[in-house]
Amino acid sequence: MQPDTARLCRALSYTFLDQGLLEQALTHRSANRKYNNERLEFLGDAQLGQVISRYLFVTFDSASEGQLTRMRASLVKGQTLAAVALEINLGDYLLLGGGELKSGGFRRESILADAFEAVLGAILIDGGEQACADVILSCFASRLATITPVSVKKDAKTQLQELLQGRQRPLPLYEVVSIAGLAPKQSFELRCTLTDTEQSFVAGGTSRRKAEQAAASLALKMLDDDTTVAPATQPQTKDDRNE
Amino acid sequence: MQPDTARLCRALSYTFLDQGLLEQALTHRSANRKYNNERLEFLGDAQLGQVISRYLFVTFDSASEGQLTRMRASLVKGQTLAAVALEINLGDYLLLGGGELKSGGFRRESILADAFEAVLGAILIDGGEQACADVILSCFASRLATITPVSVKKDAKTQLQELLQGRQRPLPLYEVVSIAGLAPKQSFELRCTLTDTEQSFVAGGTSRRKAEQAAASLALKMLDDDTTVAPATQPQTKDDRNE
Repeated sequence: MQPDTARLCRALSYTFLDQGLLEQALTHRSANRKYNNERLEFLGDAQLGQVISRYLFVTFDSASEGQLTRMRASLVKGQTLAAVALEINLGDYLLLGGGELKSGGFRRESILADAFEAVLGAILIDGGEQACADVILSCFASRLATITPVSVKKDAKTQLQELLQGRQRPLPLYEVVSIAGLAPKQSFELRCTLTDTEQSFVAGGTSRRKAEQAAASLALKMLDDDTTVAPATQPQTKDDRNE
Repeated sequence: MQPDTARLCRALSYTFLDQGLLEQALTHRSANRKYNNERLEFLGDAQLGQVISRYLFVTFDSASEGQLTRMRASLVKGQTLAAVALEINLGDYLLLGGGELKSGGFRRESILADAFEAVLGAILIDGGEQACADVILSCFASRLATITPVSVKKDAKTQLQELLQGRQRPLPLYEVVSIAGLAPKQSFELRCTLTDTEQSFVAGGTSRRKAEQAAASLALKMLDDDTTVAPATQPQTKDDRNE
């Protein structure tokens, strides 16, 4: 086992009855193919989704389903979970195999996020639902205190789709331009085409999804600039500016 | 309100304290833009995921995380939820607006699936977690009794990717060949290319995802046929056949 897990338990405000469960939650597959945190991650992931969903549903009683969904997605995405994991120094306690250890796996976003979910799964088994919900709400307290239905933007692809639909224009076409390297270290180049105007935007990313979002952002930026320019043809008066 | 909801409550084995919640869960957005089942669906969706996840985790104690994830996905996907909704005749009780009513919305998979999740969300608020879990496990009883870690296959894209990776071949390339119609009634044609052999497979579907899966299936089928043919070059003996 890595350094004193008592410190981790203090950071979580939770003490395990069964230390073995915590140990399993901290064990990455690279350290032990049989006895690792993957199943606990499956369990923790679902519990996290439920607790965050209930919190948002109760707290934002006039938010739309779309707003609730976007708030939940921004809270439970890998990037956020990894940030929460870093706040409790989870990386210091991970058991990783040789390869992952050398390549700095304890800093990798997906490994941190998965381990955090596994710790939640372990707490659920060890202490029950209420204990697990308490830990989740405490770990996310600062984020839950600042999130609002309008603070979470739609992703670029969705924004672009809605903007085009709103203007009765056809949906954009996404095409793979190139894929370099071999999985899991590939890089993608995607083209987003506005088929009616034949304008194209090419962008890259480490996954097809990321490259698509980047290409959609470029298209959005162009369309936004268009909109900014358009109203300027109506000269602004002093009164307008002061309103 | 549509026909006697007492019959629906019997099918669910649950009686609502607050009939208003059930009514809201049965109200589609097309019938009421403000007071409808969308928020309840958000809540029910997360609760369903958690209950099914816990059941699978406990029941299949030696299933891998991948197997658990695939079993969960097969149980909570729209198609399954719509089938469960049909079993309790949920379509008979839905409140739909004029357009959806005329076009037979009460039979539409997504509307049925969403309403079923909304009913679960309503039960969670009305009767609490245990009542909601009981209804979920009862509605899914026949499916939970027959599902096994090996009964749920990976989707075609994943199967194809794993097969190619196992043979040290590059990942397939997916490209949009054409998009016909306007959202939300578009049809897509996708090409899946095995870049090393330059073999291509084109298939269509009502979403990009479905067309990709269909194209991947074609590629898989060809690769499977290859494998079936390959060992036949080693003549089979009578003994081999009897083993």
